[in-house]
Amino acid sequence: MIKTFDELIAQARKGEKITVAIAAAADEAALAAISEAHKLGLADAILFGPSRKIAAMYKELTGEKEPPFAIREVEEDGAAAKAAVAAVRSGEAQILLKGKIKTAALLKAVLDIDFGLRSNHLLSDVFICEVPGLPDNKLVMITDGGVTLKPDLKQKIEIIENAIAVAHALGNEKPRIAVLSAVETVNPALPATIDAAVLTKMNHRGQIRNCIIDGPLALDNAISADAAKIKGIESPVAGRADILLCPDIESANMLAKSTTYFAHLRLGHVIMGSTAPVLIPSRADSADCKLLSIALGKLVCCRKI
Amino acid sequence: MIKTFDELIAQARKGEKITVAIAAAADEAALAAISEAHKLGLADAILFGPSRKIAAMYKELTGEKEPPFAIREVEEDGAAAKAAVAAVRSGEAQILLKGKIKTAALLKAVLDIDFGLRSNHLLSDVFICEVPGLPDNKLVMITDGGVTLKPDLKQKIEIIENAIAVAHALGNEKPRIAVLSAVETVNPALPATIDAAVLTKMNHRGQIRNCIIDGPLALDNAISADAAKIKGIESPVAGRADILLCPDIESANMLAKSTTYFAHLRLGHVIMGSTAPVLIPSRADSADCKLLSIALGKLVCCRKI
Repeated sequence: MIKTFDELIAQARKGEKITVAIAAAADEAALAAISEAHKLGLADAILFGPSRKIAAMYKELTGEKEPPFAIREVEEDGAAAKAAVAAVRSGEAQILLKGKIKTAALLKAVLDIDFGLRSNHLLSDVFICEVPGLPDNKLVMITDGGVTLKPDLKQKIEIIENAIAVAHALGNEKPRIAVLSAVETVNPALPATIDAAVLTKMNHRGQIRNCIIDGPLALDNAISADAAKIKGIESPVAGRADILLCPDIESANMLAKSTTYFAHLRLGHVIMGSTAPVLIPSRADSADCKLLSIALGKLVCCRKI
Repeated sequence: MIKTFDELIAQARKGEKITVAIAAAADEAALAAISEAHKLGLADAILFGPSRKIAAMYKELTGEKEPPFAIREVEEDGAAAKAAVAAVRSGEAQILLKGKIKTAALLKAVLDIDFGLRSNHLLSDVFICEVPGLPDNKLVMITDGGVTLKPDLKQKIEIIENAIAVAHALGNEKPRIAVLSAVETVNPALPATIDAAVLTKMNHRGQIRNCIIDGPLALDNAISADAAKIKGIESPVAGRADILLCPDIESANMLAKSTTYFAHLRLGHVIMGSTAPVLIPSRADSADCKLLSIALGKLVCCRKI
């Protein structure tokens, strides 16, 4: 089981390189990340976008004469997204990475009924950070801070399944899932605590498998065994959650961003639920984050194969 | 203007001691905090609860023969809460601190129409943490992670006013308030972004005064000037928010707890909106947090006087 980001990178370097299709690749951060991933023997790429601009940017960034990747000339962003999606769909590439294009435009191509990467699953963002202070597994996932605004119970189950798939790719065969709220007791006025109780019972009854779910839990007792003990919470998840399922996009997004902007933790994230992993790094994400996301995407692909 | 917790403690040590009424004072953490506050010349106390138990616990904790505070014998928790509230109401004490009693039981006494500490304001929790990496003011407030589950627009205004009162107590006469959501653009499907736009305009029109409000902002662009710049956000608040107004209790509670459990930041918090500051530390809060909360409560009182 992979318990740190260094182990994640080490594992992702094993085996054949994977191919990343970069949509609108004239983007410094995406090129820097794929260059690093290539040097580490992690990935190859196909770059979709304005070829001259991409080549010049790559040279400027790396000092290399030309990128060691195929470049496919596509002028317009929407067309670049479609072409990159088509490359993943055909199996030419295994991961889709957003370049200098709006997320909405890329997702439009991903979600296209005829030519996209739709499966019968809900898409969701699985965010993963490394928390140095944790006793055992230091990788904690937060979901869904990126796609569904206010998931209902059925959507939460799909969000959980997407996160479990990432946990499995990390070799964590039975991840512990904390269903978060502001409190650890069921309160009919807080719908997230109702969903938490229901999801826990569905897990008990075998309706959600390959994981251990408990909730409602507040963040303190999900993460800290001491806090759980002080509050007298008996739970197989409290104090050692691998996956934090948040009530909605706002709480998930803030919690994920707080690990960067308050705690300065390393992070990666991947959109799951499509037929191939989709990486939609934020413009404000670091190159390290983009590299970790590529490594994460590769492990998810390898697990599938 | 007070910009760090060390400055907060230094300022709170000035002037006369304030008196803290502790409800159900047979509580180690509360006694440890008030003992430290007393040593620092910050506060005196009146301890309400089972007097023998309190005295024995105090001796055990501090090694001192007996507490330098008045103890009022009250056996039952609810009665201790009522007596402590009455002491604050009469002016004998200026701050109410929760001891070994459930928050709901203490708030019942606080909210009693005839004998409580009600004002015509909504109660809300103002959480404050010190973020060492910030360029100027390192004290960031998060609200409301403790009282109102899903505040509407009017309640958000009261929550803002309560936070402004704390900012003023810290000498920050025109705090910058970020109205948070998962995104920084208005999205009709995300009510928090609608409220954010409305609150910003109300501030422009002078309907909410003594502050600078902007939103919607996501956490990254509220806190980090770099993130705001990368996303091209022009805002008088982005990158330097003093107060983070969250959409609801879940997002606020998780964000506040993440500063402790992921980022290990120091914190204090105070419930505002009543006629006197009410301190309701969590059982899992540290003694340092309780001391900072007492210091914070004192500055809020001093500002009032």
